[in-house]
Amino acid sequence: MAADGVTKDMLGRVSLTPVEKAKSILLSALANTPLQSEHCSLPAALDRIISSNLLSPEDLPAHPRSTMDGFAVRAADTFGASSSMPCYLEIDGEVAMGQMPEGEVRQGKCFRIATGGLLPKGSDAVVMFEHTIPVDEKMIEVVKSVGVGINLINRGEDIKKDSPALAKGHLLRPQDLGLLAGLGIAEVKVYRQPKVAILSTGDEVVPWSESPPPGKIRDINGITLAALCRRLGAEVTDYGIVSDSEETFFITLQRATSENNVVLFSGGSSVGMRDLGERVIEKLGNPGILVHGVALKPGKPIIIGLTNDTAIFGLPGHPVSAMVCFELFVNPALRLLAGIPHPENSRQASVNATLDRNINSAAGRLDLVRVQLEEQEDNTLLAVPVLGKSGSISTLSRADGYFFIDEATQGLNKHTHIKVYLLS
Amino acid sequence: MAADGVTKDMLGRVSLTPVEKAKSILLSALANTPLQSEHCSLPAALDRIISSNLLSPEDLPAHPRSTMDGFAVRAADTFGASSSMPCYLEIDGEVAMGQMPEGEVRQGKCFRIATGGLLPKGSDAVVMFEHTIPVDEKMIEVVKSVGVGINLINRGEDIKKDSPALAKGHLLRPQDLGLLAGLGIAEVKVYRQPKVAILSTGDEVVPWSESPPPGKIRDINGITLAALCRRLGAEVTDYGIVSDSEETFFITLQRATSENNVVLFSGGSSVGMRDLGERVIEKLGNPGILVHGVALKPGKPIIIGLTNDTAIFGLPGHPVSAMVCFELFVNPALRLLAGIPHPENSRQASVNATLDRNINSAAGRLDLVRVQLEEQEDNTLLAVPVLGKSGSISTLSRADGYFFIDEATQGLNKHTHIKVYLLS
Repeated sequence: MAADGVTKDMLGRVSLTPVEKAKSILLSALANTPLQSEHCSLPAALDRIISSNLLSPEDLPAHPRSTMDGFAVRAADTFGASSSMPCYLEIDGEVAMGQMPEGEVRQGKCFRIATGGLLPKGSDAVVMFEHTIPVDEKMIEVVKSVGVGINLINRGEDIKKDSPALAKGHLLRPQDLGLLAGLGIAEVKVYRQPKVAILSTGDEVVPWSESPPPGKIRDINGITLAALCRRLGAEVTDYGIVSDSEETFFITLQRATSENNVVLFSGGSSVGMRDLGERVIEKLGNPGILVHGVALKPGKPIIIGLTNDTAIFGLPGHPVSAMVCFELFVNPALRLLAGIPHPENSRQASVNATLDRNINSAAGRLDLVRVQLEEQEDNTLLAVPVLGKSGSISTLSRADGYFFIDEATQGLNKHTHIKVYLLS
Repeated sequence: MAADGVTKDMLGRVSLTPVEKAKSILLSALANTPLQSEHCSLPAALDRIISSNLLSPEDLPAHPRSTMDGFAVRAADTFGASSSMPCYLEIDGEVAMGQMPEGEVRQGKCFRIATGGLLPKGSDAVVMFEHTIPVDEKMIEVVKSVGVGINLINRGEDIKKDSPALAKGHLLRPQDLGLLAGLGIAEVKVYRQPKVAILSTGDEVVPWSESPPPGKIRDINGITLAALCRRLGAEVTDYGIVSDSEETFFITLQRATSENNVVLFSGGSSVGMRDLGERVIEKLGNPGILVHGVALKPGKPIIIGLTNDTAIFGLPGHPVSAMVCFELFVNPALRLLAGIPHPENSRQASVNATLDRNINSAAGRLDLVRVQLEEQEDNTLLAVPVLGKSGSISTLSRADGYFFIDEATQGLNKHTHIKVYLLS
């Protein structure tokens, strides 16, 4: 491999970089990018990434509380109690919800308590209603003994003061907002969302909202890529459609890289446009091109570059290839720049399915195959490959998901069990 | 089972409904709920559900285009061409990007063309540059024959005019916006997002933004449930915290049901609150209670009701139980009311993991076990159960996902392979 990350074969020709290697070159290059933080109100922090370790400011709960409806007791008083040998306790009080209990549970006595009620002084366990039999207004039989701490949640049992509540890099899911709300934390420090510039290139492309004159086509990649970025929480700016002129392209790309963390341009599938993309990225500054061309189908002609901490992706013009490159390269890069510590550490969820036909693949490259899923009578899923050219956006719209055929495998047989990643 | 959906045992006591049965009672009851539509601009339609079948208004692409850089030819002219026996073609023109090609490819001639260029009249295939050798400025050698239609995308090959583009009930993903953009569709008819009312009950609960006086606790469920709903695209209205008084509760619930498609109240874990919840739902109107109590841990005390097409969920007060009930019951109901045709048809993606310890479970109920996932050296995942009471929100915040132990199984052994659904 040459210093610029370009793999060459023995004759000095540029050869294709394997997908995993390209991803690791990209993520290593971005690993030390400084990330910015900002403060965010709790409800607005959903799906943001927390940017510093957070310790609990208090004990949760602040007081021991009952987790059952029943009677607050001294556990020792119930020792040995059973249906054949119940113990008798006098009802000496009642815990009102939302109030500090008055008085104290003394030996041989108990307080009526509901779920969530504060444990009164003197008591150390709760006997469930179901394990008691009323004798009269003031007396119960306890038919099952309880140990200390049974049927209650202790002070700090959920989380202790000064113990770690959430770690830096943690995605704030609904339950995490719940935890922070429980601790009274109204504002959190989160990473700024990455800024992404999107531009389409090519003299044949017009904005999708316009009616294309003969010879031109509507821009498909711009809106698709913007939506993919928005789903990851990125702030997207549309830089429109740039002509194939090198000067215009350079000026727009220069502005886009100075204003964003990531720049996506698409459309450079022709040799001319690819060369232009490469020249312009090299001209923008160091380190320049990281990867050009990967052993992937579809998606081979991707160019990946870096200039002053801004990642630049030259995505293929074909919509399917562009989206595949987004999933494999732009997605982990954006997640890294959003503050997720190990975005390549793939815990990507999948469904199991059975392939419905033989499918070929060339050795030495990673194939991504789009599939539709069909429910079978035995509740398993059948994966039916969606055939069609990589210029065909409808094949992506028909696909429920995709699977991989790795570099070492030359095709898969019908009935093979595969892992399908959902496009949902 | 009684007419009101309540399962009773032989002694006439109310018994617990199995989870799948409760889900099917709920979804059947909601199946005929009328759904409203609205028009939405294309970029704003991301993650919305399309509400009518959509046919393509035009052929995509509108003209045959090259998918390679090379030469537009008459395929018949290349018949039999090989490296040892090349054929010779005269370069008679060039297709300018974004322009209708002028002239026509005549026999023995070809036009230079780039990827995306419109196929000129007379030509019916493209020979890649790589399969040609320049002879001089006006002549090439073709070293590989091509068949008709090779290296081009035909008119309507992506999608044909009047053929189905997207079906009613389809979620609009990034690539679907791309397809619609390609077809010039600027506005789509989508289902209205369901409206959800969220209220918390209990005299011990204060808003999370307040400092709770002794005996009270901050509301955790309100913000957690709202965030879960927002992630599903629902429009959430916070009805605040309602006191345990039956009259206040009834009035608030009546207003909430008249203004929303779904009402979630949480906090009724004590027997008194559960009874009150049930009485109030029955008072609101028919059909009233559908399910009370399911064979599930955590989450047993859920109440599900229906009044004039509004689903009402009385969720347990414990945060873990409330979230589990949300995932199993509220989530599919919301997806159904959002317009997804088969929300119970679970294609939920999962990861495979190995259980790190023996775990017990009672027969006859579904157990949902929260786990942390740990990466192993061999790249597999270890699932470590997160122990802790269902009142403990921090256990949910520590969990990466969950797995089920079904009704027929009494616990699982260490090293069992399990399917973990991610909480991400």
